[in-house]
Amino acid sequence: VDSVAIFGVGLIGGSFGLALRKAGFSGTIVGVSSRSAIEGAITAGAIDRGVSLEEGVRCDLVFLAQPVLRIISTLGQLATLVRPGAIVTDAGSTKRAIVEAATSLPSFVGGHPMAGKETRGIESADADLFRGRPWLLTSEPPATLRRWIEAVGAQIHVLSPSEHDQLVALISHAPQLLSNAIARVTEPHRAFGGPGLRSMTRLADSSYEIWRDILETNRDSIVRALDEVLASATFLRNALDTQDDPAVASFFPKH
Amino acid sequence: VDSVAIFGVGLIGGSFGLALRKAGFSGTIVGVSSRSAIEGAITAGAIDRGVSLEEGVRCDLVFLAQPVLRIISTLGQLATLVRPGAIVTDAGSTKRAIVEAATSLPSFVGGHPMAGKETRGIESADADLFRGRPWLLTSEPPATLRRWIEAVGAQIHVLSPSEHDQLVALISHAPQLLSNAIARVTEPHRAFGGPGLRSMTRLADSSYEIWRDILETNRDSIVRALDEVLASATFLRNALDTQDDPAVASFFPKH
Repeated sequence: VDSVAIFGVGLIGGSFGLALRKAGFSGTIVGVSSRSAIEGAITAGAIDRGVSLEEGVRCDLVFLAQPVLRIISTLGQLATLVRPGAIVTDAGSTKRAIVEAATSLPSFVGGHPMAGKETRGIESADADLFRGRPWLLTSEPPATLRRWIEAVGAQIHVLSPSEHDQLVALISHAPQLLSNAIARVTEPHRAFGGPGLRSMTRLADSSYEIWRDILETNRDSIVRALDEVLASATFLRNALDTQDDPAVASFFPKH
Repeated sequence: VDSVAIFGVGLIGGSFGLALRKAGFSGTIVGVSSRSAIEGAITAGAIDRGVSLEEGVRCDLVFLAQPVLRIISTLGQLATLVRPGAIVTDAGSTKRAIVEAATSLPSFVGGHPMAGKETRGIESADADLFRGRPWLLTSEPPATLRRWIEAVGAQIHVLSPSEHDQLVALISHAPQLLSNAIARVTEPHRAFGGPGLRSMTRLADSSYEIWRDILETNRDSIVRALDEVLASATFLRNALDTQDDPAVASFFPKH
């Protein structure tokens, strides 16, 4: 891999550029993104310069780090432009819809680095963001892609797109929506809340702009994951109501 | 008030001693607590010395900062010992059972400073813990108690014991149990979780020792509060399932 194009140089895309450089990547890194993001990413040292989609797509490795529906639309534009032998991968939060949209790109490997931060944007980019974190892929990666993902410190796990989407529904999407539900009910009393309530409602401040794509492309898995959490909460509620204290205690850490 | 006795010199009791000193209280502050807590509280400057219950109860202001059931048992021991004119108050997490147990102490004012930290114990005590935070009381306080609560920077709100217990069920106890439920369901996949999941499961690490008293003395209110949150989460789940996107969006912040 001599050249990398990062589509969307926000937190994830910018961090990938910084991490590649820190891992010793000496080729070209270009960005395809909004003008302000490109400027920030150049200043941060995450990319060398901004380019058009047509120029970006000629790179050896194309990394799509945009919101989910944007990745899907980019994939449509790339289909006829990608060089033979080039690797295309992504960092989208859901995988079934993206992998489906990439069927005409045989070199596509769906990806999802399980790394994040409280804050978004290139200003929060961090060369160590992926270090020690899982990086989920929807199929076995070509050796060069594997090498660079491992070089930035991540651990590769291969899951099918639907296994991936169920997993993230449970560990990310359902908890997000529970935070929204708790925030709605407690909002009138927020001033009385302490750090515990803050912890449980912090995610509810997330923007719908980000979540709309995720909810739209993972609706069924999220509904199932919510049902699983709600069943567990209802079990605990009933144990409390019926004074089944051992059952209640079983939800707390063992000593 | 020339003398203050703090029963239980952990985070809350220790912070109250430090806060009184910082606010200029120049009388005696004694502690009734375990030997190790007393030593830590003296070192921290939160109390002058440790005393027996019988000696502590002779102070002008008796502040019970123990776990709920411990406060109830202390109240039973105090009933015949408190000096006329002395003020007895507490910092217990629930109020109905405590106020009920204090009926033979006419000078008792139930209290609950809505301040906390992630960490417990005298090591975490902080003279500014109550600054800018609500301090709930179950009846109008005597002027001297009001003065010192305000001097440590807290804002007094008077609520009936049952209003208090419903409020904390909603903003503290139900979110705690939801965290336990989310932690149970996501536990097998915890390694894949990011900061969002961590935020939603952090409370689940709390010790049952602390929560047992709270759950026992606020069972009915917590069940009702859980029902309210579960209804909200179920509404959101159904909106997602039926593709009612405006309803889903309404759970996210407005722009």
